[in-house]
Amino acid sequence: MASARVSGAVVRRLPSYYRYLTTLERQGVQRISSQELGARMGLTASQIRQDINCFGTLGQQGYGYNVAELKNYIGGILGLDRSYSLIIAGAGNIGRAVAAYPGFLQSGVHVKALFDVDAALFGQSVGGAEIRPLQEMPAFIQKTRCQIGVVAVPAPEAQSVADLMVGAGIRAIWNFAPVDLAVPEAIALGNVHLTDSLLVLLYGLKEKEGD
Amino acid sequence: MASARVSGAVVRRLPSYYRYLTTLERQGVQRISSQELGARMGLTASQIRQDINCFGTLGQQGYGYNVAELKNYIGGILGLDRSYSLIIAGAGNIGRAVAAYPGFLQSGVHVKALFDVDAALFGQSVGGAEIRPLQEMPAFIQKTRCQIGVVAVPAPEAQSVADLMVGAGIRAIWNFAPVDLAVPEAIALGNVHLTDSLLVLLYGLKEKEGD
Repeated sequence: MASARVSGAVVRRLPSYYRYLTTLERQGVQRISSQELGARMGLTASQIRQDINCFGTLGQQGYGYNVAELKNYIGGILGLDRSYSLIIAGAGNIGRAVAAYPGFLQSGVHVKALFDVDAALFGQSVGGAEIRPLQEMPAFIQKTRCQIGVVAVPAPEAQSVADLMVGAGIRAIWNFAPVDLAVPEAIALGNVHLTDSLLVLLYGLKEKEGD
Repeated sequence: MASARVSGAVVRRLPSYYRYLTTLERQGVQRISSQELGARMGLTASQIRQDINCFGTLGQQGYGYNVAELKNYIGGILGLDRSYSLIIAGAGNIGRAVAAYPGFLQSGVHVKALFDVDAALFGQSVGGAEIRPLQEMPAFIQKTRCQIGVVAVPAPEAQSVADLMVGAGIRAIWNFAPVDLAVPEAIALGNVHLTDSLLVLLYGLKEKEGD
């Protein structure tokens, strides 16, 4: 049932649903109407109903949604009912921030190792994972059947590191370098372009100031 | 002329245009057709033409776009012809990663200081900016007329830190904590929800594997 195909725009909203529903569940809320959920999320009630209708019939007219049920259902669509291993190339600030990120715990993602070229870092540990020589990365990916590779190296190295990962059998790349990587069609690719986010913020700032 | 209003969807693509055009300019490319630019960016030529038409007439039929001119024009819309000061609350991994981020240089953004509650960090410097006591943050914002505040503190502290920033006169908040902040309408807000990005990647991984 969690294999429903949903459109790209809905998929991009799913993490936000998941986040709000997790907070509601923690607060002890058991049911929520599309109006209330919409108000919290900054969406209209009809948008909420439309999105959730994509997954099948999870709410009853006049009764709202069961928070735990909807959360678990969305978690299933997102693949949170599985576990994943992840390695990080680059043990600088961004690689360390990712390794220590508390959000992994509830996502079933386990950080297995960081890799770097700086020998002074080898053997150090970040968030419970060890920093190892970059040249050991391909064998490590093969041995551990690790699915997710984080690219947190400087931009000029990013593509070659991604190529190494793909060659070793990685299935998904989470890219933090400010470049657009080329990966085979079969590989999932997610980008966190901090500069893009900053530029949209600067635009927002300019607009708010009435320029 | 750079004050053209463009739709939210186009705004979210602008940083990507800016990034590709910057790379092209560095590579010495002077003109580019909508076909070629689209192929590089993974958009159709007609999408490119539609987006760029929003800004006015910058291309000539059959001649393509002048790379430098288009880049500067988009930079102007994004507000990159100005300079900004930024402070960071939270000098952990994420705060440090932001402070040391090389992408600021070309955006006209200057990191003025980091603030933390950990006295052991006071006086240390990251990316040229000093770590100071969090309690000094409001006075520092007022004194320096700093416009942008980065929230890189743990989730439970994020809203109160944002409130302090807004009270002291910050105009834009760049939030890295995994919570949705409430800020007044007049304040620009940008969120980097790493968990959201990870969840979309996990969904992509599941889809690629044919679930």
